[in-house]
Amino acid sequence: MKREQLRYAHPRDIRRLIREGKWREQTAGVAEGYVQANLAVLPEELALQFFTFCQRNPRPCPVLEVTEPGMTDLTYLAQGVDLRTDLGKYRVFEGGECIAEVDNVVDYWADDLVAFLLGCSLSFDWVLVNAGIGAKWLEPGCTGCAYASSIPCNPAGIFHGPMVVSMRPIRREQIVRAVQITSRYPAVHGPPVHIGDPAQIGILDLEKPDYGTPSPATRVDADEVPVFWGCGVTPQAAALHAKPRLMITHLGGYMFISDTKIEELAIS
Amino acid sequence: MKREQLRYAHPRDIRRLIREGKWREQTAGVAEGYVQANLAVLPEELALQFFTFCQRNPRPCPVLEVTEPGMTDLTYLAQGVDLRTDLGKYRVFEGGECIAEVDNVVDYWADDLVAFLLGCSLSFDWVLVNAGIGAKWLEPGCTGCAYASSIPCNPAGIFHGPMVVSMRPIRREQIVRAVQITSRYPAVHGPPVHIGDPAQIGILDLEKPDYGTPSPATRVDADEVPVFWGCGVTPQAAALHAKPRLMITHLGGYMFISDTKIEELAIS
Repeated sequence: MKREQLRYAHPRDIRRLIREGKWREQTAGVAEGYVQANLAVLPEELALQFFTFCQRNPRPCPVLEVTEPGMTDLTYLAQGVDLRTDLGKYRVFEGGECIAEVDNVVDYWADDLVAFLLGCSLSFDWVLVNAGIGAKWLEPGCTGCAYASSIPCNPAGIFHGPMVVSMRPIRREQIVRAVQITSRYPAVHGPPVHIGDPAQIGILDLEKPDYGTPSPATRVDADEVPVFWGCGVTPQAAALHAKPRLMITHLGGYMFISDTKIEELAIS
Repeated sequence: MKREQLRYAHPRDIRRLIREGKWREQTAGVAEGYVQANLAVLPEELALQFFTFCQRNPRPCPVLEVTEPGMTDLTYLAQGVDLRTDLGKYRVFEGGECIAEVDNVVDYWADDLVAFLLGCSLSFDWVLVNAGIGAKWLEPGCTGCAYASSIPCNPAGIFHGPMVVSMRPIRREQIVRAVQITSRYPAVHGPPVHIGDPAQIGILDLEKPDYGTPSPATRVDADEVPVFWGCGVTPQAAALHAKPRLMITHLGGYMFISDTKIEELAIS
């Protein structure tokens, strides 16, 4: 099944397809209008530090929900969830090293794990599209990608590292509107963190993303400006530096798809 | 010194006056334009649960800053702070009972305490006033008050309880503008949680607040509607129910005055 076919699917049905192993693709462009989320799972003894890291870096790490230790379901974002199986692909880190890239994390789960769901900017792509702001990153064949910027995150406990950012090429006359629209959604990264010259935030070549692969969406045309948003891959960069004994995340682009409508989280 | 004389004072100077014992009044109406904050301090072993409680109840409990365990100063909201001495009055709870109401908490502080600074709606009163929305609660002789509503907070760990709310009488034709203005400041409670009939949220008599005392500001005139906002006293109500072994808070109305301008936290 191609992801275009899941544009109007309900999140619960997509999660079931994933859980049953019947679909396992990047989630950009599916479940129009619903919030997608990054996953970061940590042992309880590191959860307070990580929570504080997120609070101090709300652009890349907007917290949508935090679970009680050991729980595998959610209370607020969606119902009937199993966080161990309902995302398409996961990464498992031990001591800062990615030791596995897997389809589920049943074998890695433990009673002391706390899951953080962080907003993902894929959630507002449809709002941009509906406002006539071209989203070539949603076209077939495009995959998500992200860059490690030179913007430092505010540290907390053991967690520190660069802000990871996503990039969207936006036509110059649409930048103001893109800022206005995304400002309505701080829960999924909110407004851009940088507009224009990538070198000013330490990105030397847009065709060489640090996460994901180049695609038509990484090409900035003559009438376009690169616009950068905080990205929920940031905790993975922080994990590389902090070396927690265990950390589970989604694989970039394979997001958790919630039952929450993006308009429910709009702040105005 | 009357608080009207501190309307244009810098927060650092007011904090010094408090620390030196030279001024100790409610903080409504002082340091125009600066963010005021509620204080909630808990032992580290309860901090993750409390942080989660705040995340699940962002209207009454918007988190502005969280300290590393044992620290008495701040990094983001203000510089040169001693959280043990820089608020006018504190309450100390043991097992859910208020065991002391004191001018400083030097004797109660410990290395495992984590401080949460939560936004306070006093921060946006000046914005309302500047928009021509009368703030009789800032007039001399008015003291802050709050009500335990029947709106339940979303629980987290041991923390649960009613949402505590503040009330402002707003002229009917100004309600829309008041919603618009306060929506810009989710970090200090954001928009109202209820407009109109107090009984619908379990408040039977506006002249009998659960926190603070009646004043001209609790009287709703014929052309006014009572408008309710989430209040940072909510954690004190949760503490009564959760009975943590230790919790330190500000006394209602005696807020922490930060060096951060309210406009720095506006979301648009």
